[in-house]
Amino acid sequence: MPEISIVLVEPLYEGNVGFVARAMKNFGFTRLVLVDPCALGDEAFARASHARDVLEGAVRMSLEEVYAGSDLVVATTGELSKSVCTSMRMPYFTPAEIRTILEEAEGSVSILFGRENWGLNNEEVSRADLICTIPTSEIYPIMNLSHAVAVVCHDLAHLPRGTYRLAGKTERESLIEHFGQFLERIEHPDYKRANTLLMMRRIFGRTALTTREVSTLHGLLRRAEWHLDHPDGEEGQ
Amino acid sequence: MPEISIVLVEPLYEGNVGFVARAMKNFGFTRLVLVDPCALGDEAFARASHARDVLEGAVRMSLEEVYAGSDLVVATTGELSKSVCTSMRMPYFTPAEIRTILEEAEGSVSILFGRENWGLNNEEVSRADLICTIPTSEIYPIMNLSHAVAVVCHDLAHLPRGTYRLAGKTERESLIEHFGQFLERIEHPDYKRANTLLMMRRIFGRTALTTREVSTLHGLLRRAEWHLDHPDGEEGQ
Repeated sequence: MPEISIVLVEPLYEGNVGFVARAMKNFGFTRLVLVDPCALGDEAFARASHARDVLEGAVRMSLEEVYAGSDLVVATTGELSKSVCTSMRMPYFTPAEIRTILEEAEGSVSILFGRENWGLNNEEVSRADLICTIPTSEIYPIMNLSHAVAVVCHDLAHLPRGTYRLAGKTERESLIEHFGQFLERIEHPDYKRANTLLMMRRIFGRTALTTREVSTLHGLLRRAEWHLDHPDGEEGQ
Repeated sequence: MPEISIVLVEPLYEGNVGFVARAMKNFGFTRLVLVDPCALGDEAFARASHARDVLEGAVRMSLEEVYAGSDLVVATTGELSKSVCTSMRMPYFTPAEIRTILEEAEGSVSILFGRENWGLNNEEVSRADLICTIPTSEIYPIMNLSHAVAVVCHDLAHLPRGTYRLAGKTERESLIEHFGQFLERIEHPDYKRANTLLMMRRIFGRTALTTREVSTLHGLLRRAEWHLDHPDGEEGQ
């Protein structure tokens, strides 16, 4: 079972943070991470109710630390932001689809929820491995933060015990770096490079690559590079 | 697509009512029914945010009126109440299972949510056609009212257009009454009668009977009654 952390990025209202802690505990989640949160006082604890322990145990860290410490980062966005990000070519997944992707995985997964007033910004979204959107009504798609957390936690609860190990962020980054070098080697146009690498990042994110798959892909790249370097090599067909 | 109403039975806190309106509208639901609610003031409207119309359009009625006006009534309960009600022999369904039951149905469906402090009482639960329980953590199963509504609305959103017509409450009641007479006719023990009829009510509730099926079942009962009355009848085999 992946270790899931709920990460609130710059939450503005302590009442929401309290409700988030309660909704998490209702579905068996306890790892709450707060990035530069508002002050937490009586209202947060009143709303957390019997999830005071989740609120007290919340860890404060920077977004950099979240990215560095997670094998997989999922960014949640409202339906509205879809249009903004189409150029990033990212498929959006419902919470139920995220569940299917994470089923049987092991590793640390962070799910980011943005600010109440404008969510996560484009840079925050583009750095994530997977994008999750709750299917809402077009008429009023903006959910309260704690309701969004409740729906996601409900859909991700009771995940089965994992059977394979997710590749870590570092392993995945090194694979993407390797792809970057490969693109250069095959003279992929410079101006397309960033978008192509972002697309690779998306693909690797949603396939929830295992350690073994990462090492096989490195091997394939190395083999291709060898042939590029040895056009008449004895291994060629 | 069934017409779904969210019914709050004696809600105690206006903030929750406001959040319920918002969560409903987020998933495209607008029919809010309030049974003997607390006073609704600024806080309710602040929490409803852009779902002010849902809150303003909320209909106040008695539970009797809800039962009388619905083709199917679904009672939501916390996991805890399961043990209390085992003697009622009611299967519990998750919101996703309720969705499967309602898919392709047409008719008016009311989903009851109980008071924040102790939910629906046993009598209220036993009169419902279907029981819905959100699978929660054993450690802290008590959800905030508006979070429970959000999860149920999320699971019931985007139902397909219905293809058959649900039997109405009156039709179903008349069938159950017919069964009651039949039980008497076949000398089913008095002391078991109420429980057996409750079981029939549960079965009919969760099969989401159509008008046509109800009429066929009446026909079968009448045919059996005829044979009971005419042991040597010419139609007998």
